[in-house]
Formats: sequence, C-alpha cells, structure tokens
Amino acid sequence: MDPLARTPKPPYYAVVFTSVRTGADAEGYAATAARMVELAAAQPGFLGIESTRGADGVGITVSYWDSLDSIRRWQQHVEHLLAQEKGRSTWYARFRLRVCRVERDHDFEADA
Amino acid sequence: MDPLARTPKPPYYAVVFTSVRTGADAEGYAATAARMVELAAAQPGFLGIESTRGADGVGITVSYWDSLDSIRRWQQHVEHLLAQEKGRSTWYARFRLRVCRVERDHDFEADA
Repeated sequence: MDPLARTPKPPYYAVVFTSVRTGADAEGYAATAARMVELAAAQPGFLGIESTRGADGVGITVSYWDSLDSIRRWQQHVEHLLAQEKGRSTWYARFRLRVCRVERDHDFEADA
Repeated sequence: MDPLARTPKPPYYAVVFTSVRTGADAEGYAATAARMVELAAAQPGFLGIESTRGADGVGITVSYWDSLDSIRRWQQHVEHLLAQEKGRSTWYARFRLRVCRVERDHDFEADA
C-alpha cells in the first residue's frame, strides 16, 4: 500500500485519529487494525488512508472520504463498532478524533 | 509535550503533513524538526501539534491553527522557508500536505 494516499482534488474530508496505545493485546490489535483498513477501503466514499505509529506508542491514522455521510456510515458499520468498543476497553489509553474538510493540498516527489 | 494536542472547540484548522524520509542527514533533520516545533509553537494562532514517525520512515505531523491566515504566515516564516528548502533537497523522498478545517472532534481517556 502506498503510504501517501492518492486523494482527488479538494474539497474532500479527512478523519484524523491520534492515539496512545496501552500496549495490551498487541496481536489482537494488529489483526484488527489490518482488518479495519481492509474494511474501510471497501466502503462507499473511501478515498485513501495514511497511518503510522512510533516506538513511543503514539499513532496517527488519517482516512480520507468523499463526504460527511460516508464518514458517518463507516463509523456506524457493525464490525467497526465492535472494534471501537475493544479499542476503548483494551487497546487505547487515550485518543482524539477530528473530522475535517480538506480545503487544499500539495504534493512533493524528489527527482529520482 | 502531550502527544495529543489540547485544541479548542471546533471550528479550527489543521495542516496534515505526511512524509517519507530519504534517510539522509538524520542528525540535521532531527535538530531542525525539533526547532520547527519550538518555532511553530511561538507563532500567533498556533493551537497544538501531533507528530509520529514509524520504523518504515513514514511520518505524519498534524499542526493546529486558529485560521488560514495563521497557517499562511507560518508557511512564509523565513526560518521555516529555509527548512522547507532543505526538506525538498535532502530530507524527504516524498510528502503530501493538506490544509483542513476541523468540523468536529471527540476525545477518549481510559479510566485510570
């Protein structure tokens, strides 16, 4: 997967999810995280995803969507709701989620 | 520094900067990255910053601002412009930058 999402011309929408892991259940977390990326990518209106986590347990995942409605549907997806529940009970010490409208963007690629 | 930025009630603005490092000049990069965080935090309209980079060299930094004008001023700051130049010539293989308006947000903190 390309680490930089190939999103269309703005405007579109972004969900910025910043989290601190508890450290508990690393295997279960990794499996569900991978499944959620796969599932999100299959939803209507999904445009792309970028995600990274540092050695300090701080992670940022940004998913991109065509509309607020698509974001709402994804947040209510039954399998995603179960993952959110497990996130609150086990995987995350803290998180902050922000829903944004992307107004403009800019790309850079170094000469090969 | 708190890894989750304590931003005010929306709306406010976010700059999502997703990058792939070349691997070159790790020391110079780290010093300038730290200096840019310090400098950004001193600018008018700065609300907070979240940043992480994985072992694969993919990093996401999200800075938060009170207005598009504050973002514009920061992007034109002379010391920041020099860092941007060095980013393009040396530190980054690729990056994508998105300017967003934060519409809503949500917090979670696990019971202690």
